[in-house]
Amino acid sequence: MNKSAELVEPMTDFQNYLAEKRKLVDGEIDRLLPKVTEHPRELHEAIRYSALAKAKRVRPILALTAYEALGGSDFEMALPPICALELLHSYSLIHDDLPCMDNDDLRRGLPTVHKKFDEGIAVLAGDALHDLAFQWTARSGKIELVHELAIATGSYGMIGGQVADMEAEGRPVTAGEIEFIHTRKTAALIRCSLRFGAILAGAKAPCMEALTLYGEKLGLAFQIVDDILDIEGDQDKLGKEIGSDEKNSKATYPAAVGLPESHRIADNLIKEAIAALSNCDFPTQRLTELARYIAQRES
Amino acid sequence: MNKSAELVEPMTDFQNYLAEKRKLVDGEIDRLLPKVTEHPRELHEAIRYSALAKAKRVRPILALTAYEALGGSDFEMALPPICALELLHSYSLIHDDLPCMDNDDLRRGLPTVHKKFDEGIAVLAGDALHDLAFQWTARSGKIELVHELAIATGSYGMIGGQVADMEAEGRPVTAGEIEFIHTRKTAALIRCSLRFGAILAGAKAPCMEALTLYGEKLGLAFQIVDDILDIEGDQDKLGKEIGSDEKNSKATYPAAVGLPESHRIADNLIKEAIAALSNCDFPTQRLTELARYIAQRES
Repeated sequence: MNKSAELVEPMTDFQNYLAEKRKLVDGEIDRLLPKVTEHPRELHEAIRYSALAKAKRVRPILALTAYEALGGSDFEMALPPICALELLHSYSLIHDDLPCMDNDDLRRGLPTVHKKFDEGIAVLAGDALHDLAFQWTARSGKIELVHELAIATGSYGMIGGQVADMEAEGRPVTAGEIEFIHTRKTAALIRCSLRFGAILAGAKAPCMEALTLYGEKLGLAFQIVDDILDIEGDQDKLGKEIGSDEKNSKATYPAAVGLPESHRIADNLIKEAIAALSNCDFPTQRLTELARYIAQRES
Repeated sequence: MNKSAELVEPMTDFQNYLAEKRKLVDGEIDRLLPKVTEHPRELHEAIRYSALAKAKRVRPILALTAYEALGGSDFEMALPPICALELLHSYSLIHDDLPCMDNDDLRRGLPTVHKKFDEGIAVLAGDALHDLAFQWTARSGKIELVHELAIATGSYGMIGGQVADMEAEGRPVTAGEIEFIHTRKTAALIRCSLRFGAILAGAKAPCMEALTLYGEKLGLAFQIVDDILDIEGDQDKLGKEIGSDEKNSKATYPAAVGLPESHRIADNLIKEAIAALSNCDFPTQRLTELARYIAQRES
């Protein structure tokens, strides 16, 4: 064993699990996306630049973990819609970063799409990823997934949350308003990811309800931790500028209730997410580990 | 009869047909869209402002006409996906009009969405309409429609055409390049509209092929007529500025092959569209009238 190898801490079983699932998701996205050699090249380059940037893949990993916990094993059918969740997330990041929205220069450690290409390409690459997400979802043959995705990401879900977020900029907001925003702009797609896994595996109502509740609590916690990391996080680990929420006078939990209370609320939500699975008759260890990982993540 | 009524020309049977179908489509879109009283109000206001502006409703009327020609009569099932075609079109207009794209101030006789509201709302209202289009399509329960729509409007279809269109701005282009652009940016969704009608009615392969070919020819003609109207049209009737293609050095048929040749190509395409239906065993009169209407329209 050489010296540098000695310094590397061995990966835990859960870290190995995450790395393996990420590799599976990355490989499938790469395989299914249009190649850069296909016309119009600049569009396909921008799509791949965004969707294949190094990322946590939280949404597909949650869906995949729920799917496997419920006994799902038809990956040829399940992986395209599961990866569609990541495309949907990628499109939302491209549009969020636009100058007329959050005006961010850095994303996942790289220039944002409108910085690397231009604004027009960024709008259209987002739009094309949005279409691809529905195309990959439809490949499963399950129409209810299309319905779930459209509701979770539309005007009552993610986009509704984004607009409420923009409207709240620069003015004091109540804890209730922040919860409205975070539940929609972030938690809706995370909740939908768990429901994707459950629907793909043909889950019965009690499992579906437990995973939905787990997803709601986890999704809200995810965004609160995001808010906290924008203050306490490490810019290099995050791959984006910190302090941007304060700069843009964003509605965040720390701004509304302070940092200590934000930590307390996030911790409680993680506990509630884990508790939601307590009466399930399927293995929940990985989902529990994922909840703790989301609470403790540094990026 | 009073004097002003005497001056109004009676509507032809076809004009009555168009007016009746438009009313049906307008009513269904109004009924299915989220109300402005629903939160976030500004988003729902922008969505309704765009989708309910006075418009020709060409895509849903084509789909509906094909559906009825093939004997379809379940409007409760068929109208939501048929109206989804118009939402998809509305979203594409909002994003096309953005300052980073065509930077247009006027659409359908009204200020564009980013002028009436702001750029952020315009991006997000487009995104939400995009989701709604898939949601309404999914209501039919027919997964193949979702697939059709995603392909027609994604990077190999409408969005691919938009990017190729942007790339071609300000440089000379060949007739082949223009055909590539127009086939994708406009004809793909019109072709898809005919296929929606056919799929909803459970059409057999020969009908499907005939309507697909009709849609391809008609869709390309539609965009060439659009190019011609941008030069020869009446701004008041069009409801948008004329001369914007030349101002933006856009790739158009008149720019590539001249006006007389553009007229000739459009006329030929209309004839080919009508000829595509010649061996069909369903009533094709309305589709033939629609093709002529698209060639002769003034807006």
